[in-house]
Amino acid sequence: MAIDSVLEIIGVFFAALSGGLAAVRKSFDVFGVVVLAWAAGLGGGILRDVLIGDTPPVGISDPRLVGTALLAGVVIFFLHPGLARMRPAVVALDAGALAFFVLQGTTKGLEHGAGLLASVVVGVLTGIGGGVLRDMLVGEIPLVFADRQLYAIPAVVGAGLTATLWHFDALTVLTQAGVVVVVLGFRLLSLWRGWVAPQASQGWTGRWGRFGSGRM
Amino acid sequence: MAIDSVLEIIGVFFAALSGGLAAVRKSFDVFGVVVLAWAAGLGGGILRDVLIGDTPPVGISDPRLVGTALLAGVVIFFLHPGLARMRPAVVALDAGALAFFVLQGTTKGLEHGAGLLASVVVGVLTGIGGGVLRDMLVGEIPLVFADRQLYAIPAVVGAGLTATLWHFDALTVLTQAGVVVVVLGFRLLSLWRGWVAPQASQGWTGRWGRFGSGRM
Amino acid sequence: MAIDSVLEIIGVFFAALSGGLAAVRKSFDVFGVVVLAWAAGLGGGILRDVLIGDTPPVGISDPRLVGTALLAGVVIFFLHPGLARMRPAVVALDAGALAFFVLQGTTKGLEHGAGLLASVVVGVLTGIGGGVLRDMLVGEIPLVFADRQLYAIPAVVGAGLTATLWHFDALTVLTQAGVVVVVLGFRLLSLWRGWVAPQASQGWTGRWGRFGSGRM
Repeated sequence: MAIDSVLEIIGVFFAALSGGLAAVRKSFDVFGVVVLAWAAGLGGGILRDVLIGDTPPVGISDPRLVGTALLAGVVIFFLHPGLARMRPAVVALDAGALAFFVLQGTTKGLEHGAGLLASVVVGVLTGIGGGVLRDMLVGEIPLVFADRQLYAIPAVVGAGLTATLWHFDALTVLTQAGVVVVVLGFRLLSLWRGWVAPQASQGWTGRWGRFGSGRM
Repeated sequence: MAIDSVLEIIGVFFAALSGGLAAVRKSFDVFGVVVLAWAAGLGGGILRDVLIGDTPPVGISDPRLVGTALLAGVVIFFLHPGLARMRPAVVALDAGALAFFVLQGTTKGLEHGAGLLASVVVGVLTGIGGGVLRDMLVGEIPLVFADRQLYAIPAVVGAGLTATLWHFDALTVLTQAGVVVVVLGFRLLSLWRGWVAPQASQGWTGRWGRFGSGRM
Repeated sequence: MAIDSVLEIIGVFFAALSGGLAAVRKSFDVFGVVVLAWAAGLGGGILRDVLIGDTPPVGISDPRLVGTALLAGVVIFFLHPGLARMRPAVVALDAGALAFFVLQGTTKGLEHGAGLLASVVVGVLTGIGGGVLRDMLVGEIPLVFADRQLYAIPAVVGAGLTATLWHFDALTVLTQAGVVVVVLGFRLLSLWRGWVAPQASQGWTGRWGRFGSGRM
């Protein structure tokens, strides 16, 4: 099995753990835990494949990936108290999965002919889409929009870098490894230093409310 | 009209009723009631068709199916107090719709060349996807993940059985009827006997929380 | 640049403002604000393109549209207190955007060979889908289903009118302008006169509850 397949399976496993945990916290039953593991581990890639027209998505058709996500769900279902003690390791492995998924998602978009901009978008979605889907399925506002952590911003940097390297015909194994190092390093550094993204100022919004009823 | 078209229309009608009812309970207006009926009745099939690349989905293009779902919405809008007295019949008919939708969704995936695993996934989604979409649109956590009823598990059994029969070239009218009987019987038996799916143990989750901000 | 491209960009900008505002109200960070602007401004068109099989959707691949939505997010992030004073103008411009999006979405469906019914559905979704996605991403029940305003109903009228004109080979620049005037006028008239959509009667729903766990 090629190195990138191994990395993909590891990434799916750690992303899927987060979905299973969110489901356990909400007292979902065993089916709900397994579905949330699948959604968190493979939802970003499913969104990517639907958006670039590569159907059926690997997230429903590749037995290794689907099996990995379901396994993560079963592991969480039985072993979650023990896993809680490994949190620092899991957060670091998740940062690695983010870096790998963004590189791989952007590259797949480019190879599929989706164009530079669309490939950057689907690359970011591959990285963050599973977490957004997970949070929506458990009835929470997606963390990635609101917790101010630098999670999506490293993803955007990584996807943009990948597309730029591709555009200049410079996407090699070496530069791909460089993209992973940049995203992973940026993410871990932001965690270590406590960097946060800015929020808009508040205090005025009571006067405004949502407006229109459909698009606005 | 072929027997399976008649069954599909009946199934869509009863699934759509559930969406209209959820909307009435949330005091949606007439447009919201009709949209929720459509989402609950046809959302699973729309997900299936998008995932296997069969666009536009029949859930937006087939006048009989769309008309049936909208009719169910209008019926609920005007007649919901009377329908509340028919609950046992509606629950039984819903189990029949689940059985039929899983069989039909899995078969469509197989015939469309989606492969065994992807066809099982879209078969299950055809059965449960409309309910998930309905619950998300009314701001609730999807019942199917959390209420511990055996609803999704009969769907998984039925989809797996359908794909296995297809794989061994044994999917005939007779075995198809057998799949429907198994799913329907399993569902009704679980309701009658009060069988529930297991939940993960609790008590530890306060220490953990959601982690990362995107995929995990 | 053609007149319809200019109108599309203006429409995306005003639709995207609503997403950015919803995000600011929820204290999202700068990434969340920009993503919500993108979802509200382009989500309807992305749904349309996925449903008719035109991938990648323009909402992720067209630099002018994506850039416009992101710009609206940045504008809201920095200038939202000032924009709050312009609310009446923004509501009127949003009604114009609704009218234009419904016309354009329906026409794109028809030109893409999606058929009359599917084109009406994707036309309505182009108009209201971004707002639904916006509300779901900030954890609210979609306004368009529940606030009783006439927003979706003018959209349905406009999409139906567009498909009818197309069917009779009468969709010209002049009749297209007529569709925009009808939708815009209907929407503004309903706001001015306070027209609302009917709700179902209440008082019985406690006895019923959601039923089944998946589709119903």
